[in-house]
Amino acid sequence: MWLLDHEQLRSRLGGLFKANGLSAVSTLHVVDSMVETSLRGVDSHGINLFPHYVRSVAAGRINRDPLFRFQVTGSATSLMHADHAVGHHAGAAAMDHAVERARDSGLCAVAVADSSHFGAAWYFAVRAARQDMLGFAFTNADALVKAHNAREPFFGTNPICFAAPLPGEEPLCLDMATSLVAWNKVRERQRTGEPLPPDWAFDAQGVATTVANEARSLNPAGGYKGFGLGMMVELLCSLLSGGPAARELLPMFTSPPEAQRRISHFFLALDPARFGDVGTFKQRLKTMVETIRAMQGMDAEVMVPGDPEKRTWSRRRVQGIPVHDAMLEQFLVVDPDMGKARKA
Amino acid sequence: MWLLDHEQLRSRLGGLFKANGLSAVSTLHVVDSMVETSLRGVDSHGINLFPHYVRSVAAGRINRDPLFRFQVTGSATSLMHADHAVGHHAGAAAMDHAVERARDSGLCAVAVADSSHFGAAWYFAVRAARQDMLGFAFTNADALVKAHNAREPFFGTNPICFAAPLPGEEPLCLDMATSLVAWNKVRERQRTGEPLPPDWAFDAQGVATTVANEARSLNPAGGYKGFGLGMMVELLCSLLSGGPAARELLPMFTSPPEAQRRISHFFLALDPARFGDVGTFKQRLKTMVETIRAMQGMDAEVMVPGDPEKRTWSRRRVQGIPVHDAMLEQFLVVDPDMGKARKA
Repeated sequence: MWLLDHEQLRSRLGGLFKANGLSAVSTLHVVDSMVETSLRGVDSHGINLFPHYVRSVAAGRINRDPLFRFQVTGSATSLMHADHAVGHHAGAAAMDHAVERARDSGLCAVAVADSSHFGAAWYFAVRAARQDMLGFAFTNADALVKAHNAREPFFGTNPICFAAPLPGEEPLCLDMATSLVAWNKVRERQRTGEPLPPDWAFDAQGVATTVANEARSLNPAGGYKGFGLGMMVELLCSLLSGGPAARELLPMFTSPPEAQRRISHFFLALDPARFGDVGTFKQRLKTMVETIRAMQGMDAEVMVPGDPEKRTWSRRRVQGIPVHDAMLEQFLVVDPDMGKARKA
Repeated sequence: MWLLDHEQLRSRLGGLFKANGLSAVSTLHVVDSMVETSLRGVDSHGINLFPHYVRSVAAGRINRDPLFRFQVTGSATSLMHADHAVGHHAGAAAMDHAVERARDSGLCAVAVADSSHFGAAWYFAVRAARQDMLGFAFTNADALVKAHNAREPFFGTNPICFAAPLPGEEPLCLDMATSLVAWNKVRERQRTGEPLPPDWAFDAQGVATTVANEARSLNPAGGYKGFGLGMMVELLCSLLSGGPAARELLPMFTSPPEAQRRISHFFLALDPARFGDVGTFKQRLKTMVETIRAMQGMDAEVMVPGDPEKRTWSRRRVQGIPVHDAMLEQFLVVDPDMGKARKA
């Protein structure tokens, strides 16, 4: 296992994407999102994906120099055509547009067509919350979550992400797949051979399995509730933007590397100042958060959404981002000099 | 057990609320929502609550003749002061306002202050969807859901409700508490003495219990995910509208009957026509719904959110709404002539 320095990583990964022709601003967002997401401990959506993204840029799945087109369709709605940009860039541009328009209208929704994988959704919702907005971010994803009562998957892990400004610290942020666990956790156990907990995944017949290699679909979070929430996210993304939906989406890893996936996203920015004093809103939220954190715990401390990520972020900033050997091999294929990013 | 006729029920309950001085329009909404919710099979939020509502009107918790005040605070935001109306009326007025404004702006959010229990959230979201809008409805509720890792409850069952128009049938509707099950299901087993499934509820120490009478808090849906979603709903409702939040709320059943609870709601209406052709949107959704319904099932049919309620509605329209003996006793205290609403 190596420990990588986040600043070294930024410059190495930045150089790598630029060398592959990705525009400066696309590079900025994909690298910033990946490194910050890894610092937050969400390894499934952080730097572990850089070999995939580099290949996607090289093969043409991701447009190196996209031209975004915004259609303002109402005083609180816009449609954005992302021109097959890297999703991190498309999402940041869409959220910035939503925040700017919500300053005028109080609220703005942006549906995004023709994007690609956008990494972790917190990146966009927190971006709005840092500007004193409530931010919401959604995306569709390839079909991996078993439809309730069915044998097979239908929707993707279609995440729901929400962020709100907190005085004196980074925003409150809930960023959750609508499946019980992420597919990446199953993939990790496929590597290690460790058995799955009985409620994570199902085999090809739709029967719960503890054998990682037999897993073909994920359990929705809270049963039919997670399935329903995943459907809501799908509607907001692909059915509004006109993109491919659910099983129409090409799989992320097993499709031809040049195939454009036309992922859809949906963003909302809402200005709390339109409902009352924003200072009061933030102070009440802070008091609520502190009250929850002070509750007596069972086996573990009581936290609010995003607290574990904030702690990991502080620790990894100092100690480095851990990368396990199997992942490291994949890193070295793309960047043989990755060792230069190791912590001193 | 009795079977009650929905039309007879409407007229009996209407007469009862009017006799208690409730305005005609408040009566219309509370009765329509309760009867339709019971027809849909959601007994916890239907006519079973009428004795409670009648007492709340009689005691003054619910304002018999509320005067709503709307503050238009942006081209896509409004704040509504509900003047302690029955929540079913307040919510319908708020959603109608949101839909009307979303026709202009594409999207409108309405936060509602000083309301009361609004029954089942589907009533409002479906109201928007019947007008070709996407509808969202949220409310806070008294603290019954255990905070993740804590011993005690913090947020209420704070539901999330979403509806979208479907050609040729009633709208698609997801209406879910952010707890795994509703408190009412625990209360039902307190009556029958039947043990609880091990994942429903916790005792006063925060330990999972199967003894219904020892249950003091509910399990959030999907663990920390349901807890986080409940927090999101709380922010949208009470922190935006300025009302009491989480444990500040008076409990529904054990507070003095005249105490006004100042429940907060949040509604969104979004016009899909601002993103593309609305006919195409609806047809794609219909195809998606039909594809899911046609999937091979495990032990049960595969359905979309709201399908079980649609079936129960069709059955109960003909066969009547069943009311069990223990509930019937409570009905007869308030309306000794309830027998006149029995199916012929």
